[in-house]
Amino acid sequence: MQLEGKPVRESHAEIVEVVLPNDANPLGTILGGKVLHLVDIVAAVAAYRHSRSYVVTAAMDHVDFRHPIRVGDLVILKSSVNRVFQTSMEVGVKVFSENILTGERRHTSSAYVTFVALDSEGQPITIPPVIPESEEEKRRYEQAEARRRYRLEQRARPR
Amino acid sequence: MQLEGKPVRESHAEIVEVVLPNDANPLGTILGGKVLHLVDIVAAVAAYRHSRSYVVTAAMDHVDFRHPIRVGDLVILKSSVNRVFQTSMEVGVKVFSENILTGERRHTSSAYVTFVALDSEGQPITIPPVIPESEEEKRRYEQAEARRRYRLEQRARPR
Amino acid sequence: MQLEGKPVRESHAEIVEVVLPNDANPLGTILGGKVLHLVDIVAAVAAYRHSRSYVVTAAMDHVDFRHPIRVGDLVILKSSVNRVFQTSMEVGVKVFSENILTGERRHTSSAYVTFVALDSEGQPITIPPVIPESEEEKRRYEQAEARRRYRLEQRARPR
Amino acid sequence: MQLEGKPVRESHAEIVEVVLPNDANPLGTILGGKVLHLVDIVAAVAAYRHSRSYVVTAAMDHVDFRHPIRVGDLVILKSSVNRVFQTSMEVGVKVFSENILTGERRHTSSAYVTFVALDSEGQPITIPPVIPESEEEKRRYEQAEARRRYRLEQRARPR
Amino acid sequence: MQLEGKPVRESHAEIVEVVLPNDANPLGTILGGKVLHLVDIVAAVAAYRHSRSYVVTAAMDHVDFRHPIRVGDLVILKSSVNRVFQTSMEVGVKVFSENILTGERRHTSSAYVTFVALDSEGQPITIPPVIPESEEEKRRYEQAEARRRYRLEQRARPR
Amino acid sequence: MQLEGKPVRESHAEIVEVVLPNDANPLGTILGGKVLHLVDIVAAVAAYRHSRSYVVTAAMDHVDFRHPIRVGDLVILKSSVNRVFQTSMEVGVKVFSENILTGERRHTSSAYVTFVALDSEGQPITIPPVIPESEEEKRRYEQAEARRRYRLEQRARPR
Repeated sequence: MQLEGKPVRESHAEIVEVVLPNDANPLGTILGGKVLHLVDIVAAVAAYRHSRSYVVTAAMDHVDFRHPIRVGDLVILKSSVNRVFQTSMEVGVKVFSENILTGERRHTSSAYVTFVALDSEGQPITIPPVIPESEEEKRRYEQAEARRRYRLEQRARPR
Repeated sequence: MQLEGKPVRESHAEIVEVVLPNDANPLGTILGGKVLHLVDIVAAVAAYRHSRSYVVTAAMDHVDFRHPIRVGDLVILKSSVNRVFQTSMEVGVKVFSENILTGERRHTSSAYVTFVALDSEGQPITIPPVIPESEEEKRRYEQAEARRRYRLEQRARPR
Repeated sequence: MQLEGKPVRESHAEIVEVVLPNDANPLGTILGGKVLHLVDIVAAVAAYRHSRSYVVTAAMDHVDFRHPIRVGDLVILKSSVNRVFQTSMEVGVKVFSENILTGERRHTSSAYVTFVALDSEGQPITIPPVIPESEEEKRRYEQAEARRRYRLEQRARPR
Repeated sequence: MQLEGKPVRESHAEIVEVVLPNDANPLGTILGGKVLHLVDIVAAVAAYRHSRSYVVTAAMDHVDFRHPIRVGDLVILKSSVNRVFQTSMEVGVKVFSENILTGERRHTSSAYVTFVALDSEGQPITIPPVIPESEEEKRRYEQAEARRRYRLEQRARPR
Repeated sequence: MQLEGKPVRESHAEIVEVVLPNDANPLGTILGGKVLHLVDIVAAVAAYRHSRSYVVTAAMDHVDFRHPIRVGDLVILKSSVNRVFQTSMEVGVKVFSENILTGERRHTSSAYVTFVALDSEGQPITIPPVIPESEEEKRRYEQAEARRRYRLEQRARPR
Repeated sequence: MQLEGKPVRESHAEIVEVVLPNDANPLGTILGGKVLHLVDIVAAVAAYRHSRSYVVTAAMDHVDFRHPIRVGDLVILKSSVNRVFQTSMEVGVKVFSENILTGERRHTSSAYVTFVALDSEGQPITIPPVIPESEEEKRRYEQAEARRRYRLEQRARPR
């Protein structure tokens, strides 16, 4: 029996933080690892909102850091579920920097995080399908399939 | 000379966090002080977005904590600028809890935070007016005047 | 049956911290939210000491931030229970800054935090009365009644 | 003029931490984002040790989380530089869990982090080549070329 | 020329904290290292208050942890300067646990921390003498001399 | 019946961290208390690895801080079990600073931490003996006896 689908927009989550001195390297720009920590958190919230279950991170796809984000800038993260694969789901996250004085905003990274849905015993459970509505959501839904194939190949290779 | 106004919605900011064990009291519910820490941060982002200047917190109005938020719940905060008073501005913040498994969401607190806008030397500067558009924004704009009078009275009384 | 009262001074609590870079805004002064986080913690200790029960924060009254506290300064907080209202109690907190090199100390904020006393099941319990002894303690005890009326009005108004 | 090479082993770095309650999700297992935060830190130390320059994270390759790591377990991370590409270098990181009572150790993730070396003005600088000595080091050196091609493709695609 | 002395009590500092889950080992008792971190902070405040200069920690004497302090307990630390030795001073710290429900308080550790006073260039400067007034203060003042001899021996031995 | 011994090297643990702004005093050098916090953590890992039991810190011997470690430097800690005394064990820790640009490394502190091994009920349990193999390990094993006598004297003296 198929679970009833939910629109992508119901999973949307957002975080904004001021970059603090302890988040930065000696040159005063945010650590890549701090960004990925926030990516995982905001992605997990989208996964919670779509699946209404416990979730664990199964994989983080390749992430580029395209522009530095400086201490005192805002870092903004937006997430939503792209596609469901039975007991797992891909969440897309966009990361932006914003200068507090000029308002200049830059798209610094895109990330794709895969979560597995679990019950309270830690057993995987089936996730309701996601319904893409906008053109952008449909494009991400389509592309998720190729990303998944790459992920399965990566998982199969010896380490 | 009057600065050009900006719509309330351009100042909007949002944060979501999972409540962690260290944020809670021995009964497992979030500390009031942790909530107020987040309130100040999300309010400051709205203040930055409206004024595009440095800001410092001048006052936090009376805050009620109406429902407990538990470890493992989401805490969600939404802010926007309600009204500008020359070099200061009132930011309104709503705090919600969300149960990750049921999706139940409760409005737990409302807060009003006053910020002063400063230049890089720490001198107060004039803030552009805010333009309320929705009924809700207009209501908050009107009520901000009364809250301000109460604040000025509080500030004048001996401590 | 009336519980036996305890003197105000038995509830006294005190915290001192050096203001760190991560506690500050881009101008180098402590965040209002960080101060309120500490206010809630030191107030909760006074509430624990008076009630010898679990406590949760019910409300934080209006707080002014009168002087900036800079990175590297000390922030000092002192609390004690002002008055008990059956299952709730008002705790008063004074916040000071201290320059480590000159010793200059400024009273930067006063705060009033209301806590409800709970048993281990989370049910409200009766709190022993507090006995004000000094003139200052008696004055705060008297004024707590008016603050309470304002609080009840605030709680009753629609949000 | 070619800079003199350094052996891989001189860049080696290692971290061990006890997994704490705040690092975990509601099921009690470490957050993927916390692991990636540590991966970036231990990888940066290897990059510092090889390049003796400032470094910024340019990319994190695909990471799988193969086994859960629980609160109270140790998380262990080991890093070294795999290969240098003029002004950038690939650092390999292995992540292990260790049960403190049984000593059981599991390889939970492998990660490849790319750093760019910068001078104090933030300008990219040439990095000395790395000299792989062991069979394992030589294998990683060879494979780094293919990973680099994939990364350049990823970077070129529209987001 | 001799600097004018200051009474011991003017250097007094105090901290109270609720022990949080992240401060504890898997058995739920506070980490020794967390206690020592707090000892150093509260001792530094006493050193600031006496010397009104920058200070750095030169040594921490042997510390015993006599009773466990549990998550949810209060940890209380009290410090004051015991004696001055030209450009260094010994600060004594007492650590207590307090059960929030019963009020039971136990003296869990005593510590002696030595600080050197520095000017803003990092050069050692002469510290005003401390004036012990109570019997307890006089006893600590006398005993500080023997502790200092032990410290100098320790510092001289090869490592 | 004697438990089977384990070589010292099996208990070895290592941590490296970049010193962050929040770890430092106003002069920009790491707090002694932060170093001792890390000493306790890395020592506990060695104690876990040797005893494969829960452990609590019983004592930290006298520690000198011989050279400042600056924000942006690496702090490196290495630990191993020196000797077992029935239900307790002494762990030795060496602390080093490393300049990321020059690679200059300095031995800044040595510490000896005593842990008691506990079962899951918190009762002390017998620890297997440690087998020193290198000259250095044998020297530390021998000297541990004298340090233990001093510790027992310290523990016996009134506070």
